Amino acid sequence: MRVLGVDPGLRRTGFGVIDVDGARLSYVGSGVIRVPDGALAPRLRAIHDGITEVIDTWRPTLASVEIVFVNVNPQATLALGQARGAAIAAIAIRDVIVHEYTALQVKQSVVGYGKAAKEQVQAMVKRLLQLPGEPSADAADALACAICHAHASAMAANLGAAGALAQVARSGARSRRGRVRGR
Amino acid sequence: MRVLGVDPGLRRTGFGVIDVDGARLSYVGSGVIRVPDGALAPRLRAIHDGITEVIDTWRPTLASVEIVFVNVNPQATLALGQARGAAIAAIAIRDVIVHEYTALQVKQSVVGYGKAAKEQVQAMVKRLLQLPGEPSADAADALACAICHAHASAMAANLGAAGALAQVARSGARSRRGRVRGR
Repeated sequence: MRVLGVDPGLRRTGFGVIDVDGARLSYVGSGVIRVPDGALAPRLRAIHDGITEVIDTWRPTLASVEIVFVNVNPQATLALGQARGAAIAAIAIRDVIVHEYTALQVKQSVVGYGKAAKEQVQAMVKRLLQLPGEPSADAADALACAICHAHASAMAANLGAAGALAQVARSGARSRRGRVRGR
Repeated sequence: MRVLGVDPGLRRTGFGVIDVDGARLSYVGSGVIRVPDGALAPRLRAIHDGITEVIDTWRPTLASVEIVFVNVNPQATLALGQARGAAIAAIAIRDVIVHEYTALQVKQSVVGYGKAAKEQVQAMVKRLLQLPGEPSADAADALACAICHAHASAMAANLGAAGALAQVARSGARSRRGRVRGR
C-alpha cells in the first residue's frame, strides 16, 4: 500500500509518500508545493497541478489529509478551505480515495500525544521513516498524516475494521476533550 | 465574448453562460450542479467534474465568480472555501481566466442597488437576458455574476481600463460602507 499524505495551504502545500508493508513503513518521497503570490485562480491551479504531478509520479494507492480545525480568523479559514478544496478535488479526480484525520489523531498516532509540538512530529517522522535528516515542517506534517493512516489501517487489520474505527473515534474524542481542558 | 458565471457552494453550485456583444447580452445556458451528500472528496469531485463539463460544452472566453464575504459560522466558511477552491481550480486548469466581484458589485451592476433581495436579482436577470421564465436562485446568481463582468468590461471599453477599475473599486467601497451603516 502506498499512501500520499497532504498538508494543504494556500502558501505552501506539503506532501509526503510512504510505502506500507504490514508494520514496515518506508519513505518514498516528500516535498512542498510553493504557491506563488497573486490572484487566487493561478494559486489554486498551482496546488492542483502540483498534487497531480505528485500522483502521476508516485501513483499512491490512497491519500490521507488532515482535517482542519477552523481558525478564529475567518479570512484564514476561507483561504485554507480554498487550498483544501483544490487539493482534495485534484486527488479525487485521479480516483485516489481520500481519508481524513484530525491533527490530534495524527499527532497521537506519530508522537503518542495529541498536543505534541511541531518539532516532536518532525523528530518522530525522521525516526519512524529512518530518514538521514529532518524533513521540513510542511513535508513532515504530510508524512505524519500518511503514517497516521498506516497505523489506523494496521489497527483495522488487527481488530477488524469496526473496532478500529471505534478506537480512532474514541481517541479523537479524548484528545479533543483534553485540548479544551488544557486551555 | 462568452462569460461563464459561477456561484460555488458545497450543496449546490450554480452556473450560467452568456454571450456579450458590445451592450447586447444573450443567454446561452445555465443550471445547478447538485452535489451529493456524504464524504468531502467525492463532493469536491462532483463540483470539479460539473464545472469541467460546463466549460467543455460551452467553451467560455472567461469566468466570473462572486467573492464571498466570510460567514459568521466558521464551519460554513470552510465548506464554502472548499467548494470555491474546487470550482476555481477546475476553471483555471482549463486556461479560462477568472475574474472576481463582490456580491455587492454584482447586485449593483444587475439591480442598481447593492442591498437588493434575491428575488430582485432573479427578476432583473430574467429581464436583462429576455428569458421566458425566472431562473432558479443559484443559476440567477451565477448569471448575475456573468452580467456584472459584461457591464464592467463595457465600462472598461468606454472609460479605458484604468478608469473603469477605479470606478468599480469606488462603487464596491461605497456599497460596503452602506452595508455597514445599514446594520
